[in-house]
Amino acid sequence: MNYSLMAGGKRLRPLLVIAAAESLGASREAAVPVACAVEMVHTYSLIHDDLPAMDNDDFRRGKPTNHKVFGEAMAILAGDGLLTHAFHFAVEAARYGVPPESVLAIVEELSRYGGPAGMVGGQAADMEGEQGLTDAAHLQYIHEHKTGDLIVFSVKAGGRVGAGDAAQLQALETYGRAIGLAFQIQDDILDLTGDETKLGKKTQSDVKQGKVTYPYFHGLEQSREEVARLTRIAKEAVTGGSIPDPSRLVQIADYLLQRDH
Amino acid sequence: MNYSLMAGGKRLRPLLVIAAAESLGASREAAVPVACAVEMVHTYSLIHDDLPAMDNDDFRRGKPTNHKVFGEAMAILAGDGLLTHAFHFAVEAARYGVPPESVLAIVEELSRYGGPAGMVGGQAADMEGEQGLTDAAHLQYIHEHKTGDLIVFSVKAGGRVGAGDAAQLQALETYGRAIGLAFQIQDDILDLTGDETKLGKKTQSDVKQGKVTYPYFHGLEQSREEVARLTRIAKEAVTGGSIPDPSRLVQIADYLLQRDH
Repeated sequence: MNYSLMAGGKRLRPLLVIAAAESLGASREAAVPVACAVEMVHTYSLIHDDLPAMDNDDFRRGKPTNHKVFGEAMAILAGDGLLTHAFHFAVEAARYGVPPESVLAIVEELSRYGGPAGMVGGQAADMEGEQGLTDAAHLQYIHEHKTGDLIVFSVKAGGRVGAGDAAQLQALETYGRAIGLAFQIQDDILDLTGDETKLGKKTQSDVKQGKVTYPYFHGLEQSREEVARLTRIAKEAVTGGSIPDPSRLVQIADYLLQRDH
Repeated sequence: MNYSLMAGGKRLRPLLVIAAAESLGASREAAVPVACAVEMVHTYSLIHDDLPAMDNDDFRRGKPTNHKVFGEAMAILAGDGLLTHAFHFAVEAARYGVPPESVLAIVEELSRYGGPAGMVGGQAADMEGEQGLTDAAHLQYIHEHKTGDLIVFSVKAGGRVGAGDAAQLQALETYGRAIGLAFQIQDDILDLTGDETKLGKKTQSDVKQGKVTYPYFHGLEQSREEVARLTRIAKEAVTGGSIPDPSRLVQIADYLLQRDH
């Protein structure tokens, strides 16, 4: 559990929890437990995705994948342990003044966005895609759920830590949905064009595994335009007036647009 | 997810949630969401335990195991989905009048008893045991956590649904701890002496896999005496006066003592 959790990475999801909470005036401390929870869920999903029965990847974040170091059984259990323990951290938010009803909403949404109707469902659709069932609509479903849902969860949960009202949570959800999709399309672009050293993993892996991607259907140029368009939508959602201080959220959206890893 | 969830089984853990809630005067309806949650956690653990990298079992409850039907990738994801969705059902208890603070305690305990310090930790220790590291104390740890913890969770969570006070929750925990250990020792005994048709799985699998068990260390006769002793302890805990109606809990303890599958 520690090996994969401490292997680095961008920490995008915890950053989003904290940035969303702070954008509504909440303290960073109050957002940290939920930030930890979502990073644990993200990390478990990477460990399981890398397994031989799934994507069969040997490297992740520039280090050998969990099962290469600890074996498959321990890697499965490390993932199970991280996923289960994540809910402990979600509940911890109650110790920082977040009302019990809001904490329950966070727990419910972690389950929903992380579960069969969310991330796990997206991953299952991705596995089916490897069997040649993918069309553009199917790919959209995969992107929305496999990557997007946990990003939406992160900003919404940060909003709940910040006691956001319905309009604020909606603005954050629109922001999260847009950057989530942009993030995944950018991932697909980097898999085609990126620098292996910076990425910490092999490029062209989608092509080699016969996976269809956004650039596969829409071309590289249109994919880049779509990332830029989604970034604008995300920024507009949080700069419309409902979010008191959207500056960090805007910074993160711009960073994701320009990232090379 | 449905295939394994609907494959039958004793439904011991949900029965315990409901029996514990009813023993304190709560309605069965209020206990059902948590009962579903714990069965989903139990079922996910079976799916992952049966995987080739873990126990490599082909049959469970008389049917082909999940990965034999759906493949390893989908079996891993079915387990992940069940585990994640379980927390949705735990939160559902709030719709049946269970106070938010009690629901949060249930969520936290589902994470704790099901996670790295609980069931997942027990399973990890069991995997290590297959590598020849087991002694009697290690085996005790495996039993307490791999099987016992989720049973303890079940009766305690039922107690929380029933608005149990500290003394009542303690009585239920003592009951759960005792029948949980008795249950696992009985499992080990049945693996040695049971009827494959009734069990729905191969016997002697522990011996064949080189797993040490309670009867291995203490003999069959002493193992049977221990099951009887633990059953007495369990019944005494709930018939001491703090639990208004312990009749179903007593019935379940007696049933477990006599079961042949």
